[in-house]
Amino acid sequence: MRKAVVLLSGGLDSTTALYWAKRRGFSPIALCVRYGQRHERELLAARAVAKTAGVPCFEVDLVLPWLKVSSLLDKTQSLPDLPLGKIGRGGVPSTYVPGRNTIFLALGVSLADAVGARAVVLGANALDYSGYPDCRPDYLAAFGKVARLGTKSGRIEVLAPLSKLDKEEIVRLAGRLGAPLRLTWSCYRGGARPCGRCDSCKLRAKGFLRAGLGDPAL
Amino acid sequence: MRKAVVLLSGGLDSTTALYWAKRRGFSPIALCVRYGQRHERELLAARAVAKTAGVPCFEVDLVLPWLKVSSLLDKTQSLPDLPLGKIGRGGVPSTYVPGRNTIFLALGVSLADAVGARAVVLGANALDYSGYPDCRPDYLAAFGKVARLGTKSGRIEVLAPLSKLDKEEIVRLAGRLGAPLRLTWSCYRGGARPCGRCDSCKLRAKGFLRAGLGDPAL
Repeated sequence: MRKAVVLLSGGLDSTTALYWAKRRGFSPIALCVRYGQRHERELLAARAVAKTAGVPCFEVDLVLPWLKVSSLLDKTQSLPDLPLGKIGRGGVPSTYVPGRNTIFLALGVSLADAVGARAVVLGANALDYSGYPDCRPDYLAAFGKVARLGTKSGRIEVLAPLSKLDKEEIVRLAGRLGAPLRLTWSCYRGGARPCGRCDSCKLRAKGFLRAGLGDPAL
Repeated sequence: MRKAVVLLSGGLDSTTALYWAKRRGFSPIALCVRYGQRHERELLAARAVAKTAGVPCFEVDLVLPWLKVSSLLDKTQSLPDLPLGKIGRGGVPSTYVPGRNTIFLALGVSLADAVGARAVVLGANALDYSGYPDCRPDYLAAFGKVARLGTKSGRIEVLAPLSKLDKEEIVRLAGRLGAPLRLTWSCYRGGARPCGRCDSCKLRAKGFLRAGLGDPAL
Protein backbone atom coordinates (compact mmCIF):
# COMPACT_ATOMS: atom_id res chain seq x y z
CA MET A 1 0.00 0.00 0.00
CA ARG A 2 1.17 3.50 -0.76
CA LYS A 3 1.94 5.44 2.36
CA ALA A 4 0.70 8.98 2.95
CA VAL A 5 1.60 11.38 5.71
CA VAL A 6 -1.55 13.10 6.99
CA LEU A 7 -1.29 16.37 8.91
CA LEU A 8 -3.65 15.75 11.79
CA SER A 9 -4.72 18.49 14.19
CA GLY A 10 -7.62 16.57 15.69
CA GLY A 11 -10.23 18.87 14.17
CA LEU A 12 -13.09 18.26 11.75
CA ASP A 13 -11.13 18.93 8.58
CA SER A 14 -7.94 16.99 9.22
CA THR A 15 -9.90 14.03 10.60
CA THR A 16 -11.96 13.99 7.41
CA ALA A 17 -8.77 14.22 5.37
CA LEU A 18 -7.34 11.24 7.24
CA TYR A 19 -10.38 9.11 6.48
CA TRP A 20 -10.32 10.30 2.88
CA ALA A 21 -6.73 9.04 2.62
CA LYS A 22 -7.74 5.67 4.06
CA ARG A 23 -10.64 5.41 1.60
CA ARG A 24 -8.32 6.28 -1.26
CA GLY A 25 -6.22 3.26 -0.39
CA PHE A 26 -3.34 5.01 1.29
CA SER A 27 -1.69 3.65 4.40
CA PRO A 28 -1.71 6.85 6.48
CA ILE A 29 0.87 8.06 8.97
CA ALA A 30 -0.49 10.87 11.12
CA LEU A 31 1.69 13.84 12.00
CA CYS A 32 0.62 16.10 14.87
CA VAL A 33 2.39 19.23 16.02
CA ARG A 34 2.41 20.95 19.39
CA TYR A 35 3.47 24.53 18.77
CA GLY A 36 2.14 26.33 21.80
CA GLN A 37 -1.43 26.59 20.55
CA ARG A 38 -4.06 27.65 23.12
CA HIS A 39 -6.06 24.62 22.19
CA GLU A 40 -3.27 22.15 22.84
CA ARG A 41 -6.03 19.80 23.83
CA GLU A 42 -6.70 19.30 20.13
CA LEU A 43 -3.71 16.95 20.25
CA LEU A 44 -5.61 14.65 22.62
CA ALA A 45 -8.32 14.56 19.98
CA ALA A 46 -5.73 13.86 17.29
CA ARG A 47 -4.31 10.99 19.29
CA ALA A 48 -7.78 9.50 19.82
CA VAL A 49 -8.62 9.86 16.14
CA ALA A 50 -5.36 8.20 15.05
CA LYS A 51 -5.95 5.36 17.49
CA THR A 52 -9.51 4.83 16.26
CA ALA A 53 -8.31 4.95 12.67
CA GLY A 54 -5.60 2.44 13.50
CA VAL A 55 -2.81 4.56 12.10
CA PRO A 56 0.60 5.42 13.58
CA CYS A 57 1.01 8.93 14.88
CA PHE A 58 4.14 11.06 15.12
CA GLU A 59 3.95 13.92 17.58
CA VAL A 60 6.37 16.80 17.18
CA ASP A 61 7.09 19.57 19.68
CA LEU A 62 8.03 22.94 18.24
CA VAL A 63 9.26 25.78 20.41
CA LEU A 64 9.27 28.84 18.18
CA PRO A 65 9.01 31.94 20.36
CA TRP A 66 8.11 34.26 17.49
CA LEU A 67 4.79 32.48 16.96
CA LYS A 68 3.54 34.34 20.04
CA VAL A 69 2.60 37.20 17.74
CA SER A 70 -0.53 35.14 17.07
CA SER A 71 -3.59 35.34 19.29
CA LEU A 72 -3.83 31.57 18.83
CA LEU A 73 -0.76 31.28 21.07
CA ASP A 74 -0.74 34.48 23.11
CA LYS A 75 -3.48 34.26 25.69
CA THR A 76 -3.14 37.94 26.59
CA GLN A 77 -4.72 38.75 23.22
CA SER A 78 -8.42 38.26 22.70
CA LEU A 79 -9.70 35.93 20.03
CA PRO A 80 -11.80 37.40 17.21
CA ASP A 81 -15.55 37.13 17.70
CA LEU A 82 -16.93 38.00 14.30
CA PRO A 83 -20.37 37.40 12.84
CA LEU A 84 -20.30 34.26 10.70
CA GLY A 85 -20.67 36.18 7.45
CA LYS A 86 -17.56 38.22 8.14
CA ILE A 87 -15.20 35.35 8.99
CA GLY A 88 -12.45 35.06 6.40
CA ARG A 89 -13.50 38.25 4.60
CA GLY A 90 -11.70 40.98 6.53
CA GLY A 91 -8.04 40.28 5.85
CA VAL A 92 -5.75 38.00 7.81
CA PRO A 93 -7.06 37.66 11.39
CA SER A 94 -5.03 37.76 14.61
CA THR A 95 -5.26 33.97 14.91
CA TYR A 96 -3.00 33.60 11.89
CA VAL A 97 0.13 31.70 12.93
CA PRO A 98 3.03 32.84 10.72
CA GLY A 99 3.98 30.13 8.26
CA ARG A 100 2.10 27.41 10.12
CA ASN A 101 1.07 25.33 7.13
CA THR A 102 4.45 25.93 5.53
CA ILE A 103 6.14 24.46 8.60
CA PHE A 104 3.65 21.61 8.89
CA LEU A 105 3.93 20.75 5.20
CA ALA A 106 7.73 20.90 5.43
CA LEU A 107 7.67 18.46 8.34
CA GLY A 108 5.24 16.29 6.41
CA VAL A 109 7.40 16.29 3.28
CA SER A 110 10.44 15.44 5.38
CA LEU A 111 8.68 12.51 7.03
CA ALA A 112 7.28 11.36 3.69
CA ASP A 113 10.71 11.39 2.08
CA ALA A 114 12.21 9.51 5.04
CA VAL A 115 9.64 6.71 5.07
CA GLY A 116 8.96 6.47 1.37
CA ALA A 117 5.46 7.95 1.42
CA ARG A 118 3.99 9.20 -1.83
CA ALA A 119 1.79 11.99 -0.52
CA VAL A 120 1.28 14.56 2.19
CA VAL A 121 -2.42 15.05 2.87
CA LEU A 122 -3.90 18.02 4.69
CA GLY A 123 -7.37 19.28 5.49
CA ALA A 124 -6.89 22.86 4.32
CA ASN A 125 -9.85 24.55 2.75
CA ALA A 126 -10.47 28.06 1.60
CA LEU A 127 -14.22 28.49 1.44
CA ASP A 128 -15.42 28.37 5.02
CA TYR A 129 -12.13 29.36 6.66
CA SER A 130 -10.53 32.09 8.73
CA GLY A 131 -8.78 33.77 5.81
CA TYR A 132 -5.28 32.36 6.24
CA PRO A 133 -3.02 32.80 3.19
CA ASP A 134 -1.48 29.35 3.66
CA CYS A 135 -4.76 27.57 2.97
CA ARG A 136 -5.40 28.82 -0.57
CA PRO A 137 -5.23 26.50 -3.59
CA ASP A 138 -2.46 28.44 -5.36
CA TYR A 139 -0.30 28.26 -2.24
CA LEU A 140 -0.91 24.53 -1.92
CA ALA A 141 -0.02 24.00 -5.59
CA ALA A 142 3.23 25.92 -5.06
CA PHE A 143 4.08 23.70 -2.13
CA GLY A 144 3.40 20.66 -4.29
CA LYS A 145 6.20 21.79 -6.57
CA VAL A 146 8.53 22.20 -3.58
CA ALA A 147 7.66 18.66 -2.48
CA ARG A 148 8.53 17.22 -5.88
CA LEU A 149 11.70 19.20 -6.49
CA GLY A 150 13.16 19.20 -3.01
CA THR A 151 13.06 15.52 -2.11
CA LYS A 152 15.08 12.42 -2.81
CA SER A 153 12.03 10.55 -4.06
CA GLY A 154 10.94 13.43 -6.30
CA ARG A 155 7.44 11.96 -6.34
CA ILE A 156 5.73 13.32 -3.24
CA GLU A 157 2.36 14.95 -3.89
CA VAL A 158 0.58 17.47 -1.68
CA LEU A 159 -3.09 16.54 -1.53
CA ALA A 160 -5.76 18.81 -0.09
CA PRO A 161 -8.99 16.93 -0.78
CA LEU A 162 -11.17 19.47 1.04
CA SER A 163 -9.75 22.53 -0.63
CA LYS A 164 -12.85 23.28 -2.66
CA LEU A 165 -15.48 22.09 -0.20
CA ASP A 166 -17.50 24.22 2.17
CA LYS A 167 -18.15 23.11 5.75
CA GLU A 168 -21.50 21.51 4.94
CA GLU A 169 -19.84 19.39 2.27
CA ILE A 170 -17.01 18.47 4.64
CA VAL A 171 -19.48 17.32 7.30
CA ARG A 172 -21.32 15.25 4.70
CA LEU A 173 -18.10 13.76 3.36
CA ALA A 174 -16.98 12.89 6.89
CA GLY A 175 -20.27 11.08 7.39
CA ARG A 176 -19.86 9.06 4.20
CA LEU A 177 -16.31 8.14 5.19
CA GLY A 178 -17.26 7.12 8.71
CA ALA A 179 -14.88 9.64 10.27
CA PRO A 180 -15.25 9.67 14.09
CA LEU A 181 -16.30 13.30 14.43
CA ARG A 182 -17.36 12.70 18.03
CA LEU A 183 -13.67 12.57 18.90
CA THR A 184 -12.67 15.80 17.18
CA TRP A 185 -11.86 19.19 18.67
CA SER A 186 -12.07 22.44 16.69
CA CYS A 187 -12.44 25.25 19.25
CA TYR A 188 -9.57 27.74 19.26
CA ARG A 189 -10.11 28.59 22.92
CA GLY A 190 -9.29 25.10 24.16
CA GLY A 191 -11.39 25.23 27.30
CA ALA A 192 -13.34 22.42 28.91
CA ARG A 193 -16.09 22.75 26.30
CA PRO A 194 -16.14 24.38 22.84
CA CYS A 195 -16.75 28.12 23.28
CA GLY A 196 -19.14 28.54 20.37
CA ARG A 197 -17.83 32.05 19.67
CA CYS A 198 -14.45 31.64 17.93
CA ASP A 199 -14.17 31.42 14.14
CA SER A 200 -13.55 27.73 14.28
CA CYS A 201 -16.60 26.96 16.44
CA LYS A 202 -18.84 29.10 14.25
CA LEU A 203 -17.67 27.57 10.99
CA ARG A 204 -18.05 24.09 12.40
CA ALA A 205 -21.54 24.81 13.70
CA LYS A 206 -22.53 26.18 10.30
CA GLY A 207 -21.38 22.95 8.64
CA PHE A 208 -23.46 20.72 10.90
CA LEU A 209 -26.46 23.05 10.75
CA ARG A 210 -26.52 23.16 6.96
CA ALA A 211 -25.96 19.42 6.72
CA GLY A 212 -28.98 18.99 9.02
CA LEU A 213 -26.96 17.05 11.54
CA GLY A 214 -26.13 17.39 15.20
CA ASP A 215 -22.50 17.78 16.23
CA PRO A 216 -21.61 14.50 17.95
CA ALA A 217 -18.81 16.18 19.89
CA LEU A 218 -21.23 18.50 21.75
CA MET B 1 16.53 49.00 7.38
CA ARG B 2 14.91 46.02 5.75
CA LYS B 3 15.19 42.92 7.90
CA ALA B 4 16.26 39.56 6.48
CA VAL B 5 16.26 36.17 8.17
CA VAL B 6 19.51 34.35 7.38
CA LEU B 7 19.71 30.57 7.76
CA LEU B 8 23.02 30.17 9.55
CA SER B 9 24.68 26.79 10.05
CA GLY B 10 28.07 28.18 11.00
CA GLY B 11 29.74 26.90 7.83
CA LEU B 12 31.53 28.67 5.00
CA ASP B 13 28.49 29.16 2.79
CA SER B 14 25.94 30.42 5.30
CA THR B 15 28.49 32.73 6.91
CA THR B 16 29.23 34.22 3.50
CA ALA B 17 25.49 34.56 2.88
CA LEU B 18 25.11 36.41 6.19
CA TYR B 19 27.81 38.91 5.27
CA TRP B 20 26.32 39.26 1.80
CA ALA B 21 23.02 40.22 3.43
CA LYS B 22 24.75 42.80 5.61
CA ARG B 23 26.53 44.27 2.59
CA ARG B 24 23.26 44.43 0.71
CA GLY B 25 21.90 46.66 3.43
CA PHE B 26 19.70 44.17 5.20
CA SER B 27 19.44 44.04 8.96
CA PRO B 28 19.98 40.27 9.42
CA ILE B 29 18.43 37.95 11.97
CA ALA B 30 20.25 34.63 12.13
CA LEU B 31 18.31 31.38 12.47
CA CYS B 32 20.20 28.26 13.58
CA VAL B 33 18.72 24.79 13.94
CA ARG B 34 19.81 21.86 16.07
CA TYR B 35 18.32 18.76 14.50
CA GLY B 36 20.54 16.02 15.83
CA GLN B 37 23.36 16.57 13.34
CA ARG B 38 26.65 14.79 14.08
CA HIS B 39 28.39 18.09 13.79
CA GLU B 40 26.27 19.85 16.36
CA ARG B 41 29.39 21.83 17.11
CA GLU B 42 28.65 23.82 13.96
CA LEU B 43 26.13 25.66 16.12
CA LEU B 44 28.95 26.98 18.32
CA ALA B 45 30.48 28.35 15.15
CA ALA B 46 27.14 29.84 14.13
CA ARG B 47 26.81 31.54 17.48
CA ALA B 48 30.33 32.98 17.24
CA VAL B 49 29.71 34.20 13.69
CA ALA B 50 26.43 35.87 14.67
CA LYS B 51 28.11 37.54 17.64
CA THR B 52 30.98 38.80 15.50
CA ALA B 53 28.53 40.04 12.89
CA GLY B 54 26.55 41.78 15.59
CA VAL B 55 23.26 40.18 14.62
CA PRO B 56 20.61 38.53 16.79
CA CYS B 57 20.42 34.77 16.61
CA PHE B 58 17.43 32.48 17.10
CA GLU B 59 18.28 28.89 17.95
CA VAL B 60 15.67 26.22 17.35
CA ASP B 61 15.72 22.63 18.60
CA LEU B 62 14.04 20.06 16.40
CA VAL B 63 13.47 16.50 17.54
CA LEU B 64 12.39 14.61 14.44
CA PRO B 65 13.19 10.92 14.92
CA TRP B 66 12.75 10.04 11.25
CA LEU B 67 15.78 12.14 10.28
CA LYS B 68 17.92 9.31 11.65
CA VAL B 69 17.70 7.70 8.22
CA SER B 70 20.52 10.10 7.32
CA SER B 71 24.16 9.29 7.97
CA LEU B 72 24.52 12.91 9.01
CA LEU B 73 22.54 12.03 12.13
CA ASP B 74 23.00 8.29 12.56
CA LYS B 75 26.53 7.67 13.79
CA THR B 76 26.24 3.93 13.18
CA GLN B 77 26.39 4.69 9.45
CA SER B 78 29.67 5.63 7.85
CA LEU B 79 30.05 8.95 6.07
CA PRO B 80 30.81 8.92 2.34
CA ASP B 81 34.50 9.27 1.47
CA LEU B 82 34.42 9.96 -2.26
CA PRO B 83 37.11 11.36 -4.50
CA LEU B 84 36.51 15.07 -5.00
CA GLY B 85 35.49 14.67 -8.63
CA LYS B 86 32.67 12.29 -7.72
CA ILE B 87 31.07 14.36 -4.98
CA GLY B 88 27.59 15.45 -6.00
CA ARG B 89 27.61 13.34 -9.16
CA GLY B 90 26.45 9.95 -7.99
CA GLY B 91 22.87 10.54 -6.92
CA VAL B 92 21.66 11.65 -3.52
CA PRO B 93 24.23 10.62 -0.86
CA SER B 94 23.55 9.07 2.54
CA THR B 95 24.19 12.43 4.23
CA TYR B 96 20.98 13.80 2.69
CA VAL B 97 18.64 14.86 5.49
CA PRO B 98 15.05 14.47 4.26
CA GLY B 99 13.48 17.84 3.66
CA ARG B 100 16.13 19.75 5.60
CA ASN B 101 16.14 22.91 3.56
CA THR B 102 12.37 22.73 3.23
CA ILE B 103 12.07 22.70 7.02
CA PHE B 104 14.72 25.39 7.48
CA LEU B 105 13.15 27.64 4.85
CA ALA B 106 9.73 27.09 6.38
CA LEU B 107 11.04 28.16 9.78
CA GLY B 108 12.75 31.12 8.13
CA VAL B 109 9.60 32.20 6.32
CA SER B 110 7.63 31.88 9.54
CA LEU B 111 10.11 34.03 11.45
CA ALA B 112 10.26 36.54 8.60
CA ASP B 113 6.47 36.87 8.51
CA ALA B 114 6.36 37.28 12.30
CA VAL B 115 8.97 40.03 12.51
CA GLY B 116 8.23 41.80 9.23
CA ALA B 117 11.39 40.71 7.39
CA ARG B 118 11.41 40.99 3.63
CA ALA B 119 13.71 38.11 2.78
CA VAL B 120 14.99 34.72 3.82
CA VAL B 121 18.62 34.31 2.82
CA LEU B 122 20.42 30.97 2.61
CA GLY B 123 23.83 29.80 1.46
CA ALA B 124 22.65 26.97 -0.77
CA ASN B 125 24.68 26.30 -3.87
CA ALA B 126 24.52 23.60 -6.47
CA LEU B 127 27.91 23.57 -8.17
CA ASP B 128 30.36 22.34 -5.56
CA TYR B 129 27.86 20.52 -3.39
CA SER B 130 26.92 17.07 -2.14
CA GLY B 131 24.06 16.58 -4.60
CA TYR B 132 21.11 17.39 -2.38
CA PRO B 133 17.86 18.03 -4.27
CA ASP B 134 16.89 20.86 -1.92
CA CYS B 135 19.81 23.04 -3.00
CA ARG B 136 19.00 23.38 -6.68
CA PRO B 137 17.88 26.67 -8.22
CA ASP B 138 14.50 25.38 -9.47
CA TYR B 139 13.69 24.13 -5.98
CA LEU B 140 14.67 27.46 -4.43
CA ALA B 141 12.53 29.33 -6.96
CA ALA B 142 9.56 27.10 -6.07
CA PHE B 143 10.05 27.89 -2.42
CA GLY B 144 10.12 31.57 -3.25
CA LYS B 145 6.59 31.23 -4.57
CA VAL B 146 5.51 29.47 -1.38
CA ALA B 147 7.01 32.34 0.65
CA ARG B 148 5.07 34.94 -1.29
CA LEU B 149 1.74 33.12 -1.44
CA GLY B 150 1.70 31.61 2.04
CA THR B 151 2.41 34.61 4.22
CA LYS B 152 0.54 37.55 5.63
CA SER B 153 3.05 40.01 4.20
CA GLY B 154 2.98 38.38 0.77
CA ARG B 155 6.33 40.01 0.02
CA ILE B 156 8.95 37.67 1.43
CA GLU B 157 11.70 36.71 -1.02
CA VAL B 158 13.96 33.67 -0.84
CA LEU B 159 17.50 34.77 -1.72
CA ALA B 160 20.31 32.32 -2.42
CA PRO B 161 23.19 34.59 -3.43
CA LEU B 162 25.67 31.72 -3.75
CA SER B 163 23.48 29.48 -5.85
CA LYS B 164 25.53 29.88 -9.00
CA LEU B 165 28.99 30.19 -7.42
CA ASP B 166 31.58 27.45 -7.06
CA LYS B 167 33.59 27.08 -3.85
CA GLU B 168 36.50 29.14 -5.14
CA GLU B 169 34.15 32.01 -5.92
CA ILE B 170 32.50 31.65 -2.51
CA VAL B 171 35.85 31.85 -0.72
CA ARG B 172 36.77 34.92 -2.75
CA LEU B 173 33.41 36.54 -2.08
CA ALA B 174 33.75 35.83 1.65
CA GLY B 175 37.13 37.56 1.57
CA ARG B 176 35.74 40.65 -0.13
CA LEU B 177 32.89 40.79 2.38
CA GLY B 178 35.15 40.39 5.38
CA ALA B 179 33.34 37.28 6.56
CA PRO B 180 35.10 35.74 9.59
CA LEU B 181 35.90 32.37 8.04
CA ARG B 182 38.25 31.57 10.90
CA LEU B 183 35.19 31.04 13.05
CA THR B 184 33.35 28.70 10.68
CA TRP B 185 32.90 24.95 10.87
CA SER B 186 32.08 22.78 7.84
CA CYS B 187 33.16 19.22 8.70
CA TYR B 188 30.30 16.70 8.77
CA ARG B 189 32.10 14.51 11.28
CA GLY B 190 32.08 17.12 14.01
CA GLY B 191 35.20 15.91 15.82
CA ALA B 192 37.81 18.00 17.58
CA ARG B 193 39.34 19.00 14.23
CA PRO B 194 37.98 18.88 10.66
CA CYS B 195 38.38 15.34 9.31
CA GLY B 196 39.51 16.31 5.83
CA ARG B 197 37.73 13.30 4.31
CA CYS B 198 34.01 14.09 4.27
CA ASP B 199 32.36 15.79 1.28
CA SER B 200 32.13 19.04 3.13
CA CYS B 201 35.83 19.13 4.11
CA LYS B 202 36.90 18.25 0.58
CA LEU B 203 34.73 20.86 -1.10
CA ARG B 204 35.88 23.50 1.35
CA ALA B 205 39.55 22.60 0.84
CA LYS B 206 39.06 22.80 -2.92
CA GLY B 207 37.67 26.30 -2.58
CA PHE B 208 40.60 27.62 -0.57
CA LEU B 209 43.12 25.79 -2.75
CA ARG B 210 41.77 27.21 -6.00
CA ALA B 211 41.48 30.67 -4.50
CA GLY B 212 45.14 30.38 -3.52
CA LEU B 213 44.37 31.00 0.14
CA GLY B 214 44.94 29.15 3.35
CA ASP B 215 41.93 28.08 5.42
CA PRO B 216 42.01 30.31 8.51
CA ALA B 217 40.00 27.75 10.50
CA LEU B 218 42.75 25.11 10.22
